[in-house]
Amino acid sequence: MPELMPHWLTKQAELSPNKTAIELPDGTEVSFLELKRRSQLFAEKLFSIGIRKGAKVGIFSANHVDMVIALHGLSYLGAVAVMLNIRLTDKEVHYQIRDADVSVILTQNKQSSFHVPTYTFNDIEALEGQPAELINEIDLDAIFTIIYTSGTTGFPKGVMHTYGNHWWSAVSSMLNLGLNQHDKWLVTLPIFHVGGLSILLKSVIYGMPVYLMEKYDKQQVHQAIMSSGVTIVSVVTLMVRELIDQLGENSYPESFRCMLLGGGPAPKALLEKAKEKNVPIYQTYGMTETSSQIVTLSPGDALERIGSSGKPLFPAQLKIDAEKGSIGEILVKGPMVTQGYYNKVEATDKALTNGWLSTGDLGYTDGEGFLYVVDRRKDLIISGGENIYPTEIESVLSGMEGIREAGVTGREDIKWGQVPVAFVVLDDETLTPEKILQYAAENLASYKLPKEIHFIDQLPRNASNKLVRNRLTSLLS
Amino acid sequence: MPELMPHWLTKQAELSPNKTAIELPDGTEVSFLELKRRSQLFAEKLFSIGIRKGAKVGIFSANHVDMVIALHGLSYLGAVAVMLNIRLTDKEVHYQIRDADVSVILTQNKQSSFHVPTYTFNDIEALEGQPAELINEIDLDAIFTIIYTSGTTGFPKGVMHTYGNHWWSAVSSMLNLGLNQHDKWLVTLPIFHVGGLSILLKSVIYGMPVYLMEKYDKQQVHQAIMSSGVTIVSVVTLMVRELIDQLGENSYPESFRCMLLGGGPAPKALLEKAKEKNVPIYQTYGMTETSSQIVTLSPGDALERIGSSGKPLFPAQLKIDAEKGSIGEILVKGPMVTQGYYNKVEATDKALTNGWLSTGDLGYTDGEGFLYVVDRRKDLIISGGENIYPTEIESVLSGMEGIREAGVTGREDIKWGQVPVAFVVLDDETLTPEKILQYAAENLASYKLPKEIHFIDQLPRNASNKLVRNRLTSLLS
Repeated sequence: MPELMPHWLTKQAELSPNKTAIELPDGTEVSFLELKRRSQLFAEKLFSIGIRKGAKVGIFSANHVDMVIALHGLSYLGAVAVMLNIRLTDKEVHYQIRDADVSVILTQNKQSSFHVPTYTFNDIEALEGQPAELINEIDLDAIFTIIYTSGTTGFPKGVMHTYGNHWWSAVSSMLNLGLNQHDKWLVTLPIFHVGGLSILLKSVIYGMPVYLMEKYDKQQVHQAIMSSGVTIVSVVTLMVRELIDQLGENSYPESFRCMLLGGGPAPKALLEKAKEKNVPIYQTYGMTETSSQIVTLSPGDALERIGSSGKPLFPAQLKIDAEKGSIGEILVKGPMVTQGYYNKVEATDKALTNGWLSTGDLGYTDGEGFLYVVDRRKDLIISGGENIYPTEIESVLSGMEGIREAGVTGREDIKWGQVPVAFVVLDDETLTPEKILQYAAENLASYKLPKEIHFIDQLPRNASNKLVRNRLTSLLS
Repeated sequence: MPELMPHWLTKQAELSPNKTAIELPDGTEVSFLELKRRSQLFAEKLFSIGIRKGAKVGIFSANHVDMVIALHGLSYLGAVAVMLNIRLTDKEVHYQIRDADVSVILTQNKQSSFHVPTYTFNDIEALEGQPAELINEIDLDAIFTIIYTSGTTGFPKGVMHTYGNHWWSAVSSMLNLGLNQHDKWLVTLPIFHVGGLSILLKSVIYGMPVYLMEKYDKQQVHQAIMSSGVTIVSVVTLMVRELIDQLGENSYPESFRCMLLGGGPAPKALLEKAKEKNVPIYQTYGMTETSSQIVTLSPGDALERIGSSGKPLFPAQLKIDAEKGSIGEILVKGPMVTQGYYNKVEATDKALTNGWLSTGDLGYTDGEGFLYVVDRRKDLIISGGENIYPTEIESVLSGMEGIREAGVTGREDIKWGQVPVAFVVLDDETLTPEKILQYAAENLASYKLPKEIHFIDQLPRNASNKLVRNRLTSLLS
């Protein structure tokens, strides 16, 4: 197999020089040619401060054009971009910087707390460039990015992505969702997570504009879908709920063809509501280790398979570590799967066996091969020998009129080992724990009923708006 | 880079079991699931006659569902399909059979003239299958097909295509043309040529139906475009001319989005006429060695760059062996380029240098990187030290009212070395050589004027309807 191909951005600037690569809410547009020129200039400036092939360079920024330019700039030098999550604590970031051997950090705003040389994008822009031999051909086996997994147990691990991982991810998604000349993908997920990053790389590979938002804002996203020609948006569950509220009695334009929903199982009631409103939701399953999607519903199945994440993308494979039809750990394989964690041989060996990634997620497939993800294995509640899946309870609770959302976790119990406990965000303040339990009892076996109902203003979520259940657990202590 | 991926047909049968894979003019449809089942059964029957991994099996057939099944059946055994051109003479076919070490031949109709065991598709169908270990994962580096180049000089050579070559060809085309849920690609080119074959492989990779015709028939093709939901068709120049005549004052449906025109330079007058009629012609450049397209116009450029073949597809590269802007040999590189000719180390080394294929074609690129193919290098006429490109003269002649088509070749000349000679097919029988020369003189420099004009009923064409200029030359002797 070939390992070299033309540098993606250079190539796209040749194919579609005047096409828009990035569009911003303020109306600014950056063409592929301009993006290339600015990224190459940025690379020469990075070269002047000593960045060379293989260097690990941290990017610490909210979504911004300058961040995109920094990313492509690093690729022109063959340097590795370590995408740092700006919502982490200093201590957490310091850990990642040390662990990834980061030698320089690029930031949007002045930061003094890092212990390695730190430059703002503007600092770099202000430098004299130095002629550098920029990369013309990408080696698909070379590492392009490192992103740390949220790592709720133990220390976080740096997932390495090769150019090939990102390439196959983009191509595999296209084989499923198709691609048309007028596609425009909205980036509201953070670029420091793989969900956001992968859209930027699809942009240069497909020759497709992205509509780039600094951060998620429900009204801005709604507006962009309604009137900016956005055809695809990647979202997490929380956003779906808010966007559907925002939509009210209106409909999205027909050209809006895909709301790609990742970040974990979604409540069925929400998906049903989306279907009623003709919102083209495609559930997908993926993680940092799979360079974003690896299992996704297809256009033909999206409305018929509510609750399923679909089938493994064309070059990918899936198996469940259990008897046929039963729930077990999800294993996946494919060219978008990471080759491992940076400097963590043991963790890599544990996660990967002959190319098969143990995801730590639980799920099952139906008779036709559709995947249903039920929960993170570590979130499983075992109560008196019975398996209880928090997601199932959350799905029931959030389907109740007056409940906005719910999070469920396990609490230790002398008699049962563990029991489920629910945290609920109310829309209707008159709801009582009794009424909620009564509703739950109509929909859940008795051993699955939450033993406590706590009201809470909002659920703890991470930078990609995913529910963090271990933060619920810590609320209990 | 990964070398294994799920078997394409098995995977597509999992993803889209009930979707149509093949549609025939008589209304028959074969789903991906059925195609898989029949191909796997066929493989088990082939196994029972001793076909094993790596065996070279000749396929000698017009386009037919059985031929498609045979092809996929061979891939389930890891055998190599040697695609034989049914329009060749016995002697030519015998040469290819021997040269490719073909051990068994599969044919549509009884053939007794081959010197190796020969079975019709029906013969195989009638066998008892034998349980065989069928291939689940495709090795992208393995050879899938061998197709002989028409080879007008010297002996023909067997171009080897790996699964990877075909894969990258399909993906590269999709990155350029896009892909939508309703695409249906019409196969009227012979499957024993790479132009037809590549569409069948796109079908299983994209999950896209093909509309399969036994052979080109202008009325049938016209009807299929007008009323069978065909969105893309691959054609050669001759077909464009006939289809536009057939179209008359009508228009194609809006869903028909691409007439992909390969097989050599097309007369500008014809392309202009197509543009007038809103026929969405995309010129493309490719050859057996590049597994079909390697340079193609894009949707955005198709109508604006008449006469150009476009830019190299995303993973491909192009250079011209000449000063910038001048005419020289076209060299191409990319993952769809063959790794060489079967058992022909010397010819392979001559054709390929560090991954760059010397195409033997002449062309130039404009300031924006668009390729213009001018001619086959071997067809170049050198007259008194001046380069004369037959295609240019043909393009002028066929633009004249009353001329259907024209072929030009060189004849030896004591004074000039070579001089151009024209063969003309008339629509208007009253045209005389004098009138034609008068018209030509208004459009061509005098040294390019044909020294002879011959009238002829039809031009000599090969099985893919390409003009064969050396057969014109032999008409002169």
